[in-house]
Amino acid sequence: MTTTGQANDVSLDVAADLAAQLRVDSIRCSTSAGSGHPTSGMSAADLLAVLVTRHLRYDWDDPRSPLNDHLIFSKGHASPLLYSIFRAVGVVSEDELINGYRRFGQRLEGHPTPVLPWVDVATGSLGQGLPDGVGVALAGRYLDRLPYRVWVLCGDSELAEGSIWEAFDKASYYELSNLVAIVDVNRLGQRGPTDLQWDLAAYAERAKAFGARTIEIDGHDLDVIDHAFTEAASHMGGGKPTVIFAKTIKGKGFSEVENKNGWHGKPLPPDMADRAIAELGGVRGLVVRGPLPSPAEPGPPLEHPSTLPREAVPQPSTDWPAYKTGEKIATRKAYGDVLVTLGARDPKVVALDGEVSNSTHADEFEQAFPDRYFEMFIAEQQMIAAATGLAVRGYKAFASTFAAFFTRAYDFIRMGAISGVDLRLVGSHSGVEIGADGPSQMALEDLAMFRAVHGSTVLYPADGTSTAALTEAMANTSGISYMRTTRGAYPGLYASGEEFTVGGSKVLRSGPDDQVALVGAGVTLHECLRAADILAADGIAARVIDCYSVKPIDASALKAAAEATHGRIVVAEDHHPQGGLASAVADALLTAGQQNLHLTRLAVRGMPGSGTAAELLAWAGIDAEHIANAARLLT
Amino acid sequence: MTTTGQANDVSLDVAADLAAQLRVDSIRCSTSAGSGHPTSGMSAADLLAVLVTRHLRYDWDDPRSPLNDHLIFSKGHASPLLYSIFRAVGVVSEDELINGYRRFGQRLEGHPTPVLPWVDVATGSLGQGLPDGVGVALAGRYLDRLPYRVWVLCGDSELAEGSIWEAFDKASYYELSNLVAIVDVNRLGQRGPTDLQWDLAAYAERAKAFGARTIEIDGHDLDVIDHAFTEAASHMGGGKPTVIFAKTIKGKGFSEVENKNGWHGKPLPPDMADRAIAELGGVRGLVVRGPLPSPAEPGPPLEHPSTLPREAVPQPSTDWPAYKTGEKIATRKAYGDVLVTLGARDPKVVALDGEVSNSTHADEFEQAFPDRYFEMFIAEQQMIAAATGLAVRGYKAFASTFAAFFTRAYDFIRMGAISGVDLRLVGSHSGVEIGADGPSQMALEDLAMFRAVHGSTVLYPADGTSTAALTEAMANTSGISYMRTTRGAYPGLYASGEEFTVGGSKVLRSGPDDQVALVGAGVTLHECLRAADILAADGIAARVIDCYSVKPIDASALKAAAEATHGRIVVAEDHHPQGGLASAVADALLTAGQQNLHLTRLAVRGMPGSGTAAELLAWAGIDAEHIANAARLLT
Repeated sequence: MTTTGQANDVSLDVAADLAAQLRVDSIRCSTSAGSGHPTSGMSAADLLAVLVTRHLRYDWDDPRSPLNDHLIFSKGHASPLLYSIFRAVGVVSEDELINGYRRFGQRLEGHPTPVLPWVDVATGSLGQGLPDGVGVALAGRYLDRLPYRVWVLCGDSELAEGSIWEAFDKASYYELSNLVAIVDVNRLGQRGPTDLQWDLAAYAERAKAFGARTIEIDGHDLDVIDHAFTEAASHMGGGKPTVIFAKTIKGKGFSEVENKNGWHGKPLPPDMADRAIAELGGVRGLVVRGPLPSPAEPGPPLEHPSTLPREAVPQPSTDWPAYKTGEKIATRKAYGDVLVTLGARDPKVVALDGEVSNSTHADEFEQAFPDRYFEMFIAEQQMIAAATGLAVRGYKAFASTFAAFFTRAYDFIRMGAISGVDLRLVGSHSGVEIGADGPSQMALEDLAMFRAVHGSTVLYPADGTSTAALTEAMANTSGISYMRTTRGAYPGLYASGEEFTVGGSKVLRSGPDDQVALVGAGVTLHECLRAADILAADGIAARVIDCYSVKPIDASALKAAAEATHGRIVVAEDHHPQGGLASAVADALLTAGQQNLHLTRLAVRGMPGSGTAAELLAWAGIDAEHIANAARLLT
Repeated sequence: MTTTGQANDVSLDVAADLAAQLRVDSIRCSTSAGSGHPTSGMSAADLLAVLVTRHLRYDWDDPRSPLNDHLIFSKGHASPLLYSIFRAVGVVSEDELINGYRRFGQRLEGHPTPVLPWVDVATGSLGQGLPDGVGVALAGRYLDRLPYRVWVLCGDSELAEGSIWEAFDKASYYELSNLVAIVDVNRLGQRGPTDLQWDLAAYAERAKAFGARTIEIDGHDLDVIDHAFTEAASHMGGGKPTVIFAKTIKGKGFSEVENKNGWHGKPLPPDMADRAIAELGGVRGLVVRGPLPSPAEPGPPLEHPSTLPREAVPQPSTDWPAYKTGEKIATRKAYGDVLVTLGARDPKVVALDGEVSNSTHADEFEQAFPDRYFEMFIAEQQMIAAATGLAVRGYKAFASTFAAFFTRAYDFIRMGAISGVDLRLVGSHSGVEIGADGPSQMALEDLAMFRAVHGSTVLYPADGTSTAALTEAMANTSGISYMRTTRGAYPGLYASGEEFTVGGSKVLRSGPDDQVALVGAGVTLHECLRAADILAADGIAARVIDCYSVKPIDASALKAAAEATHGRIVVAEDHHPQGGLASAVADALLTAGQQNLHLTRLAVRGMPGSGTAAELLAWAGIDAEHIANAARLLT
């Protein structure tokens, strides 16, 4: 039997046939590839067969349609099932499925990534697809205001990840009734039974306590599944996300592996695959699609929950904030200022923060555009995931917290890069400069962490003008971009209107007889300038470079400085010595073939405690006096 | 009134007086410092006054006593309260409290760290103290088997962190009735009201669903508080952790700031402080202690929940596993083997894993020593925190997962370094070498991430013998040590008994006429060896260095190689180009003053997909052919 074209009337008999095909194809593609997770797809095949034929509103010929529902496999290892669906709806050929899966240079990768047009986000690191789905659902409810639904297939094992509970918390707080999580409770993880095994009631109690509506079902009874999805979809305006806990059997459909430990992430050997396919009724060629989305216009603006009183704010200005040279301003404040301008100029700009918006100054944006600001409370993983989901729907999300706390979400940032989304991340309170709060609040690994992310951009401005310009640049930067801001206020260095480009730098002091170059960024740039004054008093001419773009870095300016100074360079950074600014400088100069190189690296090498910024910069050996001393030793 | 010495009979009247003193002192020290979070301590002062005078069994003169209860401030920003307690029990002077708090070079840091002998772990990144407490409680129940209790003061804001729910999940799974979380529900976060505000019932429903026993109280009624702690302590064998949700008022005790937004993280200005102190009855000098722990012997062994059937295993051998040169073995397998040997030799060795123990081979340890293995399921943050808590009690914890998934716990690893604990972390399945699973499972940032951690050690062995030796070395390494293992099996390079030291390297090929040096580690070392063969066939002599210790790195061997080869070095690494092996090599050579340096860095620069290991190493340009080509270009 073959049904083609999209229809609303695919019967459950056809869905049952499809489920068998999805199981067979999950086995075929993974056995052919020699790796993969067929049994993790077989447990969810009935759920997905009903979903894609009767509930998921999706135009497979137009995956970019804003009206489409979203389908996210949070359990990304069930990729054989997802790709078997793609074959069943006719967008991937049988040949590609069987011979392309997990092969080099092919798009049907081991875990789904958006190299496939029907995949929103990369999954495979568990506990991320649902938080990402929260972001898509936020966009759907409050920004797009379109009736699409977000269906997320979760594994039961991944419910051990705290990020899943951050997601439920925010989904209920933001009343995301357009979000449906389908949890495939197949009882078995990779190495054995899960914590809660088949205790659906215990799972449901947790989800309910986190504000979700829950439905417990037999995940292999198509009628029951169908009713559950209808029920989930019928409460779209009810203010609660829905979680369907489906009791399933891992490896369902092939008696030799059903509910047996030891079959996670293993393809069936060819002889077993043959027996499995026979038991499942053989290879099929069903092509079947479910309902299309109905045409819709964006609904009226919807105020979202906000616990801050909204002050009456004047119409935000579309003029760039102007900062004067010499006037002290914290770069975090400049970030807040310019974010408002960006918001006024581009309705796609949105902001998120992790309950520190009055420190990062994202609160300026919240006051100006309350409907485009999403408070994520202290849940940095969900903050990045929400930004990812918002980016999936085309929004330019800026997410901020203390720079140190992005370490909490490194896995999400890494996966964001694999998802190919554009994320703008801004971390305040970096380095020992923060002073009295002590090491737990001091970002000293962030530059290394962000530099190592694929395709990332890392910026670290030193004054208001450069912060404003680079924040604007981030709005137009693809991939993961990160800006480090500083707690304290420092004098403006650049007149308003000065231009800054990603990959650029500024030479703030230079002369024909420069004997040494001082390279700084952010707070250490101010120390470099002061060091140059100290050195000048000693008759030593020092070039000073503002290396505000740490990645990409301005190799030509650095090379020119090295050549002018016979390779004498001092780099000072408020960061651990590994992987930060000095590493970037060294990498650039070595790559540029610089031979004669006397590079002194001043960085935070000890474990800091509390103190004033000045005390700690001196203690770390990255203040003007230490920079000047290091320069003297080189000259 | 002054009560000295430890007693069981401190009255609630004295506790009330103490509570006022704690508030006054929280104000005094933070006003004097000009920063800090007095209002966050004032909300919890009644809770802590009752706890330390009547329930916490602690010998303040012997903080290392194994019998002591543990007190962890998960809300580390309430440090003024904690330090005021230290004054009240007589271990910190009034002068140190008032004039030392948050000052440079002093031990009363902005957030608590174990530079203080009464502090177990550094806190300040929220959502970590409770998970750390789970680790201490695991040690207490299953390893120490002593009747101490773990009391953790949590903030309400931090309940938005998923890690808190990972902690409750594991606390109930492991039946940690020796754990009591006290949640100071003061309704106000840093920038405004929390998600759930004073909805104690909603909080309690969540904690109950996660398996905890819950008690809801008025956090300012001393009688009620006292009963709650008695109740908590009376269920120590009941198999459930207890969570006390206390409704409190932020800034309680000073009417001008009580329950007012905008007073988070702000000291009172001196005039307000004076009024507050007056309202609270003035400065006090109460010195009072609570009960001492009773003498106790370790209880009988207690089997912990384990969902894997325990196979009968022979007595584990204390002999080091021996590997032969040329025989293929995966380094992850060698790790599992030697972990068993370490366990047989040292009862303090324990292991944890994130539900992938059959991949990391930690399952070998689980089978051999089920009572010293803690399955953390897919909760990497809690895994690191549990290891931290176990380390607090002196256990040598090895924690393993896929290398990529340590990114999930970077904030916990960073805080582990600040806590000064020894953590042994082992990440398998690193780099593109893993092949078909695709980029979500490929650690390509881990070397950069771990190198940037303060005081860390980073190891990356290439064969069984070196893995065994370096795993043993980790057992005796302080701070955060990390070992990267490889998925595939590669030939043994070293005979059993060969010695490997942290900071060392091995020169595997060398001669008097070496024209170029090839530096690899792990999988790329095997490619370097093959490249050397290719080059030898071309008549090019290549030195090959096994840089198994990435941090610290063997600068002298690298320097010698650079000198021998006129600075011609090729580094190949299965990692992004930033912050990994090549950066470590470059940093070492530049620091060593190497001038003539032609360093070619081969690393993973694109976004990988699926494929075989060989295909992906070739695609990334880090296989033998690419290494040989790069070497030819240098010579």
